[in-house]
Amino acid sequence: MRLVQFSWPGAPDERRTGALLSDDQLIDVTEWVGLPLDLAVLAGEFDPQIIKVALDDTPEPVDLTAVQLHAPLTRLSSLRDFYAFEQHVKTANANRNRSVPPEWYEIPVFYFSNHQAVFGPEVEISYPVGSRALDYELEVACVIGQMGHNIPAHEAESFILGYMIFNDWSARDVQRQEMRVGLGPAKGKDFASSFGPFLVLPDALADRAADRPGVFDLTMTARVNGEERSRGNWADIHYSFGEIIERASAGVTLYPGDVIGSGTVGTGCLLELTRGEGPYLQPGDVVELAIERLGILRNTVGPYQD
Amino acid sequence: MRLVQFSWPGAPDERRTGALLSDDQLIDVTEWVGLPLDLAVLAGEFDPQIIKVALDDTPEPVDLTAVQLHAPLTRLSSLRDFYAFEQHVKTANANRNRSVPPEWYEIPVFYFSNHQAVFGPEVEISYPVGSRALDYELEVACVIGQMGHNIPAHEAESFILGYMIFNDWSARDVQRQEMRVGLGPAKGKDFASSFGPFLVLPDALADRAADRPGVFDLTMTARVNGEERSRGNWADIHYSFGEIIERASAGVTLYPGDVIGSGTVGTGCLLELTRGEGPYLQPGDVVELAIERLGILRNTVGPYQD
Repeated sequence: MRLVQFSWPGAPDERRTGALLSDDQLIDVTEWVGLPLDLAVLAGEFDPQIIKVALDDTPEPVDLTAVQLHAPLTRLSSLRDFYAFEQHVKTANANRNRSVPPEWYEIPVFYFSNHQAVFGPEVEISYPVGSRALDYELEVACVIGQMGHNIPAHEAESFILGYMIFNDWSARDVQRQEMRVGLGPAKGKDFASSFGPFLVLPDALADRAADRPGVFDLTMTARVNGEERSRGNWADIHYSFGEIIERASAGVTLYPGDVIGSGTVGTGCLLELTRGEGPYLQPGDVVELAIERLGILRNTVGPYQD
Repeated sequence: MRLVQFSWPGAPDERRTGALLSDDQLIDVTEWVGLPLDLAVLAGEFDPQIIKVALDDTPEPVDLTAVQLHAPLTRLSSLRDFYAFEQHVKTANANRNRSVPPEWYEIPVFYFSNHQAVFGPEVEISYPVGSRALDYELEVACVIGQMGHNIPAHEAESFILGYMIFNDWSARDVQRQEMRVGLGPAKGKDFASSFGPFLVLPDALADRAADRPGVFDLTMTARVNGEERSRGNWADIHYSFGEIIERASAGVTLYPGDVIGSGTVGTGCLLELTRGEGPYLQPGDVVELAIERLGILRNTVGPYQD
């Protein structure tokens, strides 16, 4: 099952919930869900079964081209981003003339990011004021569907509602300056996270399941202005979403609507591809992140701002 | 004006809103506010004027000893923690045989922390599993009262609803391991943040205002088992809350219920006092953080957990 939030032309602020029938058509299940998808998830009240009931009612299909898609969740309860692909970590450290710290192999490490700057597909991402080094990061994120605490990796999949593409937009000049102080990234990444276009439930990925919890054999690519720049596979992840959730929930309660990013896949950002020297994204660039089965997340880069 | 969330004995889950009449007495203003304080703040619907109306109705005063106090806000929209006291930054770096990075003097730096692990006064803080190095951090936090974007420092005070004491509990062994990977602190601090006992509105601090926005001449102290360990002053802060809010809101929207910590005041944690070598807190220790006018935030440390 693949879910979206969308709005009708002429009512862009009225978010509705849709379920995909095919790559081209959805059905409007708002009445069955009762709330926009994100609010139903945050309230812990979203039940995928209800969609099956809606489908049995044979509602009218709608062409995807007739609606505006939003992020699958517009409001999140929180946003954690891990650092779970070894190739990305190796290259990011090599760019700073370092090897991977041994601690990276001991524990999955993450930072909290801004869960209140969420953007959907097709919208323009503002160039951060003063920055000249905007970058994309190609990631997959999971959405927590139910409350949990001290979740072991092998039980983690039952806490995952679904997956979506995540672009962890990063201003490399801002990030480099602040990270020298030692508290990790914040302003370098707090201005925008884009997600979507679909929230894909695990049933739609089952035939591609790898041998670890929350890992699937699905190709991940990024294109800038139509040219492929990044290519990797979700199954290359060093720490599974099972291990990631075990770490995130150790001594801490996870809530419905918490979103957890994988970290950047190997080759999945310009920082890595250009050894930290750029060129980075330019105003007007079109960035498309694609993950098999999860759709294509397309955004445009806004003008420089001083 | 000083505000609290409290509950009556026998109904610990029914949070009510109180306004202090004195250090010993409150009035129950729940009916006037209409929601628990945190939900009213999050909804952007809290208006301090309503409390003045309630006081004019001369309701029955209640002894503080007759109720259970909770954190002034049980739910936050987000939690940022800055690093704004120079003495703390100097000592923290000296413990790692480093001087303060020059970037610290260029920009106020922060990290996002877990806004979903909030504790109030008097409750026990669990010792994180496996840790033997639990520490307190003596901070002041401001609460954002209205939405804002690109807020200049000199206008920031109009976005601050009030202030409260913040204990940024930290597991130093966990933090040290994860920070070697370079993304800053996360699991070392995500298990507990305690706040309170009061949310103090700026009108109650006006006679102690220093010459910078969001800075007051108020002594900050910490005691462990009755013995004073930390002593500083809010006015020693290098970056004012005005500058902190300017940085936090640059290119980003702040929302009502966002909470922003100052960072640890100089001498305000055991890491600093023991040059990173401990001893840290022991099970059963009673930690009291006090800031003039803001009350005393008292918590007890739980048993070791393996």
